[in-house]
Amino acid sequence: MAPWGKRLAGVRGVLLDISGVLYDSGAGGGTAIAGSVEAVARLKRSRLKVRFCTNESQKSRAELVGQLQRLGFDISEQEVTAPAPAACQILKEQGLRPYLLIHDGVRSEFDQIDTSNPNCVVIADAGESFSYQNMNNAFQVLMELEKPVLISLGKGRYYKETSGLMLDVGPYMKALEYACGIKAEVVGKPSPEFFKSALQAIGVEAHQAVMIGDDIVGDVGGAQRCGMRALQVRTGKFRYLSDSCGPGSFASSDAEELAGANMPSDEHHPEVKADGYVDNLAEAVDLLLQHADK
Amino acid sequence: MAPWGKRLAGVRGVLLDISGVLYDSGAGGGTAIAGSVEAVARLKRSRLKVRFCTNESQKSRAELVGQLQRLGFDISEQEVTAPAPAACQILKEQGLRPYLLIHDGVRSEFDQIDTSNPNCVVIADAGESFSYQNMNNAFQVLMELEKPVLISLGKGRYYKETSGLMLDVGPYMKALEYACGIKAEVVGKPSPEFFKSALQAIGVEAHQAVMIGDDIVGDVGGAQRCGMRALQVRTGKFRYLSDSCGPGSFASSDAEELAGANMPSDEHHPEVKADGYVDNLAEAVDLLLQHADK
Repeated sequence: MAPWGKRLAGVRGVLLDISGVLYDSGAGGGTAIAGSVEAVARLKRSRLKVRFCTNESQKSRAELVGQLQRLGFDISEQEVTAPAPAACQILKEQGLRPYLLIHDGVRSEFDQIDTSNPNCVVIADAGESFSYQNMNNAFQVLMELEKPVLISLGKGRYYKETSGLMLDVGPYMKALEYACGIKAEVVGKPSPEFFKSALQAIGVEAHQAVMIGDDIVGDVGGAQRCGMRALQVRTGKFRYLSDSCGPGSFASSDAEELAGANMPSDEHHPEVKADGYVDNLAEAVDLLLQHADK
Repeated sequence: MAPWGKRLAGVRGVLLDISGVLYDSGAGGGTAIAGSVEAVARLKRSRLKVRFCTNESQKSRAELVGQLQRLGFDISEQEVTAPAPAACQILKEQGLRPYLLIHDGVRSEFDQIDTSNPNCVVIADAGESFSYQNMNNAFQVLMELEKPVLISLGKGRYYKETSGLMLDVGPYMKALEYACGIKAEVVGKPSPEFFKSALQAIGVEAHQAVMIGDDIVGDVGGAQRCGMRALQVRTGKFRYLSDSCGPGSFASSDAEELAGANMPSDEHHPEVKADGYVDNLAEAVDLLLQHADK
């Protein structure tokens, strides 16, 4: 690989994933990842533009930001690009009235949306609300429509809570796609529109920006397809090679086509190669402050 | 199409799907489909060999047969090929100890199976037991395994209850496949081994047999790939063309690759063509008694 100075040359803006990069969510508000509070503070004191770009869809931005502030992070609601507001914009533009298969924590983001007589389904990381009854309600709404529309807030496979790995919205999106024979419209990473709206908010071009995330496909692959550079952190749901770390370290492959049971580590993903791998956000910020915008 | 006499020539054995062909399941034991009780009786009085071949995985065979007998059907447990016993055989042969993501109604079929310290997951039509907690348990078991094994009892998309369409095991199988980056082993239709074991039970060769089902892919396509002929009934989950029947008639496409929102009716499926379409089992039996084994 090229030296860091070359890989990070000309970077003016940074998009930061939140879960798995800033903190691990979980009971009691989760825990900050070591060094990340200071890393965000240093980044914001620098000349680099910073935007938080998350697929979080269990909580409203207000709740998420409140939680992060309590952990010590310098972050405000206005600095966060999240999928729920982006979905609301699409619903309004297209006159869609959703059946909401979502967590109660994010419901306030949809306060202004008409949900009577639904003509589409919006699915988010609903957690415990992914009951059979709720899934079947969403399925029946879709099957009653002549042209079924399913909007998914992200398509992540799983995320890491302090208590372990948790199913994200992606598997449930796939379930409804298969049940109805349709393809969902994904709002959030890795959708190019989503990355672009985050870049617009800080006035930075894709080629001047770097994404930092723990998801090799959603964060790294998605950002690169938009012309950005991307670093993967070895925190959050980053997966090591299984044979070097024993049981439980089964590695991630987000490839659309299933890759079978023999998974490479995230650093040997069959389709996506990050512009760099770092131990955590603190190391990424060290490198950025040393080499970016030169 | 060729005349029925030609299409059914040489048929010596009949495999009958149960749900959607004999009866529609639902509250209070479901309801028999008009004419099906008599049709089964007539078939069993004929020279044709008969075997019931179901993907039912919510109930044990004993419970299923009891329900059908109460509806008036001439059927015994020994005449039914069902996925749970087939799965038990695989588990025993391979020394697998499953985490069971199943309905309580089918649990008795697994009485002889060791479920301690699971080294695989068995998923069936679990209905209300498809809670987030149970799905996440199954997911975590799979992710802890170096070589994750997921056995699915069928992969149907949905079935029809008297109260409406209900999500079947297939969507949940897809969810776990996507979450873990693996491919499930399907036990039940359309697995060729499953059809073959049903044929063996009545001593009939594939080319001498006809499958009668309501599922264009699981029943019709699966049977044809085994060298059998197959008729689709227009009962159960059979879907008509949407524009001829208005909302609610969104047609079925079980193709592995999603076909998009514009679905043909089952009679215009992009990949599977039945050897004949009939209104119901009664019509199928009329035709068989008239033309088969000639």
